[in-house]
Amino acid sequence: MRIRVINPNTTAAMTALIGESARSVAAPDTVIEAVNPQMGPASIESHYDEALSVPGLLAEIARGEAEGVDGYVIACFGDPGLDAARELARGPVIGIAEAGMQYASHLGRRFSVVTTLARTAGRAWELAERYGMERFCANVHACEIPVLELEDPKARKVIADACREAVAADDSDAVVLGCAGMADLCEFLTAEVGVPVVDGVAAATLTVQSLVTMKLRKSGRGEFAAPLPKKYVGLLADFGIEEKEAQA
Amino acid sequence: MRIRVINPNTTAAMTALIGESARSVAAPDTVIEAVNPQMGPASIESHYDEALSVPGLLAEIARGEAEGVDGYVIACFGDPGLDAARELARGPVIGIAEAGMQYASHLGRRFSVVTTLARTAGRAWELAERYGMERFCANVHACEIPVLELEDPKARKVIADACREAVAADDSDAVVLGCAGMADLCEFLTAEVGVPVVDGVAAATLTVQSLVTMKLRKSGRGEFAAPLPKKYVGLLADFGIEEKEAQA
Amino acid sequence: MRIRVINPNTTAAMTALIGESARSVAAPDTVIEAVNPQMGPASIESHYDEALSVPGLLAEIARGEAEGVDGYVIACFGDPGLDAARELARGPVIGIAEAGMQYASHLGRRFSVVTTLARTAGRAWELAERYGMERFCANVHACEIPVLELEDPKARKVIADACREAVAADDSDAVVLGCAGMADLCEFLTAEVGVPVVDGVAAATLTVQSLVTMKLRKSGRGEFAAPLPKKYVGLLADFGIEEKEAQA
Amino acid sequence: MRIRVINPNTTAAMTALIGESARSVAAPDTVIEAVNPQMGPASIESHYDEALSVPGLLAEIARGEAEGVDGYVIACFGDPGLDAARELARGPVIGIAEAGMQYASHLGRRFSVVTTLARTAGRAWELAERYGMERFCANVHACEIPVLELEDPKARKVIADACREAVAADDSDAVVLGCAGMADLCEFLTAEVGVPVVDGVAAATLTVQSLVTMKLRKSGRGEFAAPLPKKYVGLLADFGIEEKEAQA
Amino acid sequence: MRIRVINPNTTAAMTALIGESARSVAAPDTVIEAVNPQMGPASIESHYDEALSVPGLLAEIARGEAEGVDGYVIACFGDPGLDAARELARGPVIGIAEAGMQYASHLGRRFSVVTTLARTAGRAWELAERYGMERFCANVHACEIPVLELEDPKARKVIADACREAVAADDSDAVVLGCAGMADLCEFLTAEVGVPVVDGVAAATLTVQSLVTMKLRKSGRGEFAAPLPKKYVGLLADFGIEEKEAQA
Amino acid sequence: MRIRVINPNTTAAMTALIGESARSVAAPDTVIEAVNPQMGPASIESHYDEALSVPGLLAEIARGEAEGVDGYVIACFGDPGLDAARELARGPVIGIAEAGMQYASHLGRRFSVVTTLARTAGRAWELAERYGMERFCANVHACEIPVLELEDPKARKVIADACREAVAADDSDAVVLGCAGMADLCEFLTAEVGVPVVDGVAAATLTVQSLVTMKLRKSGRGEFAAPLPKKYVGLLADFGIEEKEAQA
Repeated sequence: MRIRVINPNTTAAMTALIGESARSVAAPDTVIEAVNPQMGPASIESHYDEALSVPGLLAEIARGEAEGVDGYVIACFGDPGLDAARELARGPVIGIAEAGMQYASHLGRRFSVVTTLARTAGRAWELAERYGMERFCANVHACEIPVLELEDPKARKVIADACREAVAADDSDAVVLGCAGMADLCEFLTAEVGVPVVDGVAAATLTVQSLVTMKLRKSGRGEFAAPLPKKYVGLLADFGIEEKEAQA
Repeated sequence: MRIRVINPNTTAAMTALIGESARSVAAPDTVIEAVNPQMGPASIESHYDEALSVPGLLAEIARGEAEGVDGYVIACFGDPGLDAARELARGPVIGIAEAGMQYASHLGRRFSVVTTLARTAGRAWELAERYGMERFCANVHACEIPVLELEDPKARKVIADACREAVAADDSDAVVLGCAGMADLCEFLTAEVGVPVVDGVAAATLTVQSLVTMKLRKSGRGEFAAPLPKKYVGLLADFGIEEKEAQA
Repeated sequence: MRIRVINPNTTAAMTALIGESARSVAAPDTVIEAVNPQMGPASIESHYDEALSVPGLLAEIARGEAEGVDGYVIACFGDPGLDAARELARGPVIGIAEAGMQYASHLGRRFSVVTTLARTAGRAWELAERYGMERFCANVHACEIPVLELEDPKARKVIADACREAVAADDSDAVVLGCAGMADLCEFLTAEVGVPVVDGVAAATLTVQSLVTMKLRKSGRGEFAAPLPKKYVGLLADFGIEEKEAQA
Repeated sequence: MRIRVINPNTTAAMTALIGESARSVAAPDTVIEAVNPQMGPASIESHYDEALSVPGLLAEIARGEAEGVDGYVIACFGDPGLDAARELARGPVIGIAEAGMQYASHLGRRFSVVTTLARTAGRAWELAERYGMERFCANVHACEIPVLELEDPKARKVIADACREAVAADDSDAVVLGCAGMADLCEFLTAEVGVPVVDGVAAATLTVQSLVTMKLRKSGRGEFAAPLPKKYVGLLADFGIEEKEAQA
Repeated sequence: MRIRVINPNTTAAMTALIGESARSVAAPDTVIEAVNPQMGPASIESHYDEALSVPGLLAEIARGEAEGVDGYVIACFGDPGLDAARELARGPVIGIAEAGMQYASHLGRRFSVVTTLARTAGRAWELAERYGMERFCANVHACEIPVLELEDPKARKVIADACREAVAADDSDAVVLGCAGMADLCEFLTAEVGVPVVDGVAAATLTVQSLVTMKLRKSGRGEFAAPLPKKYVGLLADFGIEEKEAQA
Repeated sequence: MRIRVINPNTTAAMTALIGESARSVAAPDTVIEAVNPQMGPASIESHYDEALSVPGLLAEIARGEAEGVDGYVIACFGDPGLDAARELARGPVIGIAEAGMQYASHLGRRFSVVTTLARTAGRAWELAERYGMERFCANVHACEIPVLELEDPKARKVIADACREAVAADDSDAVVLGCAGMADLCEFLTAEVGVPVVDGVAAATLTVQSLVTMKLRKSGRGEFAAPLPKKYVGLLADFGIEEKEAQA
């Protein structure tokens, strides 16, 4: 089984870290391919960045489809382009907010999300609602560390403090990490905070692996059928879908 | 006052039609500038098309900001890129689903949406929820006419029939047209169907005009502050925001 | 176009102030007629006052209909009698809570309401729910200034403080003023508080103007059809609707 | 214990019928006083009628308070004036929609409402939401018999048919009668329809009796405290509350 | 009329106290039979205890049915086994959380629940949602006194303090006591706290009495029809329902 | 890794079938132990059966804990005893409704549930709400085949028809099988119906396996901490938890 884990930003160091997290939980015979787009933002910290990460992400899905990949993880907590990716892919596509929140829902009455910048909290709430996880989400907390500074050695302590304060304020049973760039902190934080801390990258990887194992894939008709053939122009001309592709 | 009405697809005929609808309701001293992106899909009929219409749309917003435009309409019923556009623009940005549904909410207990292809209904429901309009939205109905065939003379009758059936099935007090390409049918349909039929292009234009008149614009801080400076690479390199731009 | 802005209480000074707010945003060819009922409470600060403001308000609507008025604003934040007024009027009737909250929903993720007495907060929440605005309403705050003391020079500072505290507590993107008597403070408060402050009187006036411009009016059938002919007795005998009136 | 059951319309025959229903379930030592206002509509079939029934209803509450009444039933399925009445009364005030729906919620998973005219269904849904009963309310059905024709011998069959069809369409466990004027049909309909049929007049009477027995009455502070002293003018001048009354 | 009030734990002292509360409000001709199961936990303070209280509770219902009891109260704030009991009983079965919350909903905009241990708060919220009372429930507060120590003379003060703090924090109009073992504190707490304090045992007793008075009982078909005949084995073999019983 | 899959009814043939389904998806090094209780109902088709299946189920969990089992599946679509089981177990416990619905939520906009008897639909809706899956659940359909007759060769066709009708009526993207006894029909039905058909047993097994792989287990404090030590009497005396056990 081949699972492509797509970091939708263009920072290779983060792609590597995300790949590690996915590999640490995947089954021995599951091949994890961690990639990032060839175009787009170095990190995703606004609706603007998120919107503009999507063309590159979709190019990776298209490439994966051509190469026979079985399923995909979108490894950014805004789950950018999820619906479009599901139209494009034949196999499952799972976002890390989607999987992280669902796994946390099994661990108690409610969870806290701890994310990077406060300005991304609105999107996290939107996703919680979309996935039916709003009732489990006690609150979304920011540690105000930019995505590309998460690797700074001082960041660990700030994040641990944010988690601890979140759990105390929300009386929550678990923490969901609100950024793929925190994936390597999971074990450290669980020990520090005293409640389970969920990394969405691992969770999404296992959800994809499970869906592929169960041979569950979309029906091919309706809302998530392949995109219709369509002429595209300008910079994005190559994204247009030819009549014959669509029939394939 | 200058309002830029952006048709997010690249079909100029539809842009012209949309401009007409906006002009027909705008105040005498409001200048309506109807534009469409230089890149992207010829029509928007899937999540994929919608996602890939956004870069071109955002380029239009950026150009508008440079030119001192006062506010923007996003003239596609999926309201693509709305959040990103709001970060980028200083003045108001309104989607036609947003405005169309809100205007219809003033006309009775509930409305029906009549859209093009059934596969877009999921997105319409998502937006209804987002705008708090779910409680007013009785149902979303499709007439199964592709966007670029709306101008076909036979389309009018099919759409009128769909509206009539929707109102009967939902016992609804109004119809919201689910595509900017139907903007010119509004008067015809109101007469045919016997309940008010709302064109989101006109509604959004008037909402922008009203917000500008009231001098209401976002605060500049928080979730919808300008996007952070960020390096972008590849095809979309020009979308990156320089440190100094961000400070401006 | 003639828009009648009805202050549902009987205090003429407040009616004048409300008229000013409406006129400040209306189009040059829109005539604003600010009126108040001939009967009822001097101010509205309870469910009791609100209920008893309605007969006088409906009398004004009936008078407006006889005089060919195009649309109406109900200029009290409890939106009293809105449904009954919509039955009676042929053109649009908009409440200031309805319009104020909807305009604020375009300005960010969530707004705070700042109202007069805390005992009116329950009604504000009820309306937020009714209009689908509950998801945008962070909280309702009271400044505890009675309606008829809003003009006191000291009130401005108290209200500004309440707005500032509301925005800080709610991390909100806008403030909606919870009383028509605050309409003249809008610009002052926006400057003081640093987020957009929305006056429902102006917002509702522009919504009515827009609906009339778009020729959108209720269908004439169903829940909001004209009230049925009915015999009324006692003090309110004149409110009864004759068979022949109903047919007109 | 004295319970005043107020029919908010001015039709004495209906008041008598409502009184019978209340008396048929009240405890032996509970005195039921069925009254109707001296002013207002002969029947309530629109938002307009409902709004204008309230002054007369509130006059009855005020009279009841002067006479030491222990609690009140508002015997119209729109529960008109409930909040205002609760401010005015020291003891409990219960609406028949409120009590009817809550009793029905004990009888199964969901109930159907069967009401008079379809145009009143919107209000029934609004109340279901307000009381938290929306989740139990399968649907609201109309038999299209005007309130004052419910006594017509042919009405019984039409209503029974509407109940039967409602239960079949909704697969519901109970029926709530949507008009006080149907109170005498309860036993007949239960036998005809095969599921329990709930009369809100009886239910509300027993709820008031229970609250008085438990000595439960509002706290006297907050939203439902007595209305503030206030000057009223015109036809409704007598409804104004004097400073000294308010202190009493 | 015979109402059986079932304390689902096996502590006889608490059963006696619960019986007193029920008797204090029941009509003179209503016989209150307070009982507790012959098996199960001494008190209910976890989901585990609650689940295991149900077999004994159902045995009491079965015994009551054999003896012609008219209706039942489940006197534990988790309302354990309510659905199963409703299948088994011909007459009404009401839980004390259900009735307590519904009575409190008549007393103002919102109530606070004050319960024993914090770990039971999740269940209280779940029930609030189930009964449609979530919108009235401001919050659930714990006094952290175990059920079997409620009779300790020091407990009264701790509970009164918890109620007072709850009302202040929630700005609530009433308190619902979150444990049947607090039933005797109702009058004391109402006096101490200044808002009405609702005992669910009394409320549920009166609800059952009212339903029996109105002759309202489930329809006999659908979800709450009698359990199907079924073979049971092991310790619980006697709970199996024979074919012929089911037909009776 | 050892996962115990508990069939909460006492029918061994069904336990075997459930074990097969779990084994068919589990990783090679995951040991699946399919068991059923020693007491309780032969099948679960009512709230009564469900409530009485719980003691036997909890005994299996207790036995599993003593034997070092890593996680548990509750293999009945009512997810009986889930909260109590989570208190008792150190590792994850997942219900098949919970997992089946969550997996289906990844496959499109909405799913249909196809269950055995119509009387169980209410419980399925309750669980959908609890897990946040209500928004994905289009409807719950019954095939009216009793649980113990699912193995009848004729059942397959009836179920396939019910699935096909459900998908057509709901325009849904997937089917969730509403009974563990249908687990072996999954592949057959997917082929017949043309949309993915989800077996909750496999889904729950993989969810448990994933949670154990990620080392995610409840925090040990709060609502799902181990049950408190407590004296139990009668038939269920052995379920009481000793002081020293609780400390262990």
